[in-house]
Amino acid sequence: MKKLILLITAISACTVMNAQPSAYNLSEREFPKVNPDKSVTFSVSAPNAKALSVELGGSYPMTKDEQGVWTATTKPQVDGFHYYSLSAGGVQFADPSTYTFFGMSRYASAVEIPGAADAAFYTPKKDVAQGAVRSVTFYSDVCGEYRRAWVYTPAEYSTNSKNRYPVLYLQHGGGEDETGWLYQGFMDVILDNLIAEGKAEPMIIVCNCNACNYAGQEGRGGDEAFYDMMLKDCIPFIDSNFRTLSDRDHRAVAGLSWGAKNAYDLGLGHPELFSAVAGFSGIIVIGEFRRAGGGAPGYMNDDELLTAFNGVFADPEKFNKDYHLLWMGNGSVEGNNIQGMHEKLASKGINSVFYQSEGTAHEWLTWRRCLYEFAQKLFKF
Amino acid sequence: MKKLILLITAISACTVMNAQPSAYNLSEREFPKVNPDKSVTFSVSAPNAKALSVELGGSYPMTKDEQGVWTATTKPQVDGFHYYSLSAGGVQFADPSTYTFFGMSRYASAVEIPGAADAAFYTPKKDVAQGAVRSVTFYSDVCGEYRRAWVYTPAEYSTNSKNRYPVLYLQHGGGEDETGWLYQGFMDVILDNLIAEGKAEPMIIVCNCNACNYAGQEGRGGDEAFYDMMLKDCIPFIDSNFRTLSDRDHRAVAGLSWGAKNAYDLGLGHPELFSAVAGFSGIIVIGEFRRAGGGAPGYMNDDELLTAFNGVFADPEKFNKDYHLLWMGNGSVEGNNIQGMHEKLASKGINSVFYQSEGTAHEWLTWRRCLYEFAQKLFKF
Repeated sequence: MKKLILLITAISACTVMNAQPSAYNLSEREFPKVNPDKSVTFSVSAPNAKALSVELGGSYPMTKDEQGVWTATTKPQVDGFHYYSLSAGGVQFADPSTYTFFGMSRYASAVEIPGAADAAFYTPKKDVAQGAVRSVTFYSDVCGEYRRAWVYTPAEYSTNSKNRYPVLYLQHGGGEDETGWLYQGFMDVILDNLIAEGKAEPMIIVCNCNACNYAGQEGRGGDEAFYDMMLKDCIPFIDSNFRTLSDRDHRAVAGLSWGAKNAYDLGLGHPELFSAVAGFSGIIVIGEFRRAGGGAPGYMNDDELLTAFNGVFADPEKFNKDYHLLWMGNGSVEGNNIQGMHEKLASKGINSVFYQSEGTAHEWLTWRRCLYEFAQKLFKF
Repeated sequence: MKKLILLITAISACTVMNAQPSAYNLSEREFPKVNPDKSVTFSVSAPNAKALSVELGGSYPMTKDEQGVWTATTKPQVDGFHYYSLSAGGVQFADPSTYTFFGMSRYASAVEIPGAADAAFYTPKKDVAQGAVRSVTFYSDVCGEYRRAWVYTPAEYSTNSKNRYPVLYLQHGGGEDETGWLYQGFMDVILDNLIAEGKAEPMIIVCNCNACNYAGQEGRGGDEAFYDMMLKDCIPFIDSNFRTLSDRDHRAVAGLSWGAKNAYDLGLGHPELFSAVAGFSGIIVIGEFRRAGGGAPGYMNDDELLTAFNGVFADPEKFNKDYHLLWMGNGSVEGNNIQGMHEKLASKGINSVFYQSEGTAHEWLTWRRCLYEFAQKLFKF
């Protein structure tokens, strides 16, 4: 992982002028290369292969040269982070040339299309004090197992041994795990930079994996097991092992995509525990919508709005007083669902903040920007 | 990663009676399965594949059933941790069914053959206080880049805000990186358990990646760049950012395989900085042996012994007084090289400790045991 941070720094801070290795290539691997038009060229040495392709959005067959080196170039890609696979002999797998990230429900390759003018916000800076990111293991009685969380503490946490800090619980998306916000999202760098500039309150961030089974259960436990684990095991563990401010005013929950649903369920379903909630690229799903199947979840109708989450929206004035922040954002390439939800809530007098990331899709550059924007509003009341 | 620790706990603490999923399978993946005779059965659904094989020591062609599911069973394997690959269409890659580990100079699949009677030492225990493992980023002037290290601090580090602690610098092997001792080696669990039993001194452990280039250099910088980075950037960073005991008495270096060479080079080459050195499954290499090529490195002859590392062995009495601990170990399946080195040193009056892990090979069960044994002797003088 030694090169990852440097390459991000070097590549993303400038416009792409020449083809250059993707930020996530292993040390000294030239390919994948990002071209000036934001297409990506892949190259794999496999003299014995009969056929190879790259799966990145679409499928790109590779062609072989005399040395047995296979190459393919994709269409131009949207800025940001993209998972991809290689395919050979009927199997899709991670490219051996890159760092891998837990996504697509397995370890997956990725390329980063640089060029975002704002990349400095997730780039480490020498004069910025660093927080710490810890791998923390705790026992969950709900799940009957040890589980890992990542915990970010701000730089001053280790030098000021008395202060207590607010906590943001921050969730990954479908097919990802608790590593996402560290390896794909650079949450630590984003917060270090914001805190150093005085733009965000120093806070603790906790990332969990939402894949949970009840102890002894066969098969996947689903979101209910995850929520029980969070409420009964994780939050108490964090409050007793870190210097937290443990009242609801100083506890928030946010997530991306499926994790946005998790954040809304936890945050709006438990006003006694949370006073700030955010969803990145995910709408507020009323449980029955999803469970009924039948395509994408719709907006709440007025009846549902009144009863959702034990009626938390029924009294807008009370909601606006109780919740310090309801925040939602997405990428402009994703469409208007999130904005529609924000406007529907506004039409009922419910305060929320909407943010749109220009030119980005359902991927990590959108979510890095969402965290950057959201964190500046959080715990300020 | 949620299941990893639990599975280790459940599987490795008992003898294998039935075929069971390997400890590193992704959530709810049944294969690879470890059989009672310690052979491993692999299964991959790939209806369109023409041919598939498993590469684990040897190559095992897989056979396809009517549903397009391919299976193969290996020969019985030695206890412990084994990297493996799948091969299809002329390409080797990581199995999409498992967690991956940085090894083989890329992200690689692995199986763990359980059954070791002593597995409790690397198994988390509910009543044991946990240290913290932090992902730490620091800027290296030598390399001209940000680099990541993992830093383990013992449980009492966060509750006792005054105490200072000795530091062990702990290195991975060839083709691995700074994640090895955390994900493959369970260093945090091993130390937590030892410290809780009063068998090891509370200590800080720092893991770096040995892949280093000098700033601006093309190609791989080799060990010299790594040593410069450690001495000029990493050690000063750790001593100024953690509550360390920063004298040589309280600084040690150890490593496995190629990391053992790194540990000997650093530790024996810099008596002003280190007072304890350990090599796991790696012999003391005089630089010229390797550089001359020509097969496995040999033992030092008497002349070389006198001059190696600026003559650190030339005066055995002084060496035995200066160094609190010179420790070496390996797995019994690896052969007698390390024992031979220990005996050669003993014949010259140089004190060292030799340990052999019974029934294990050049893999992580050997190295977990080495850390367990070595840590009990470290910083006790």
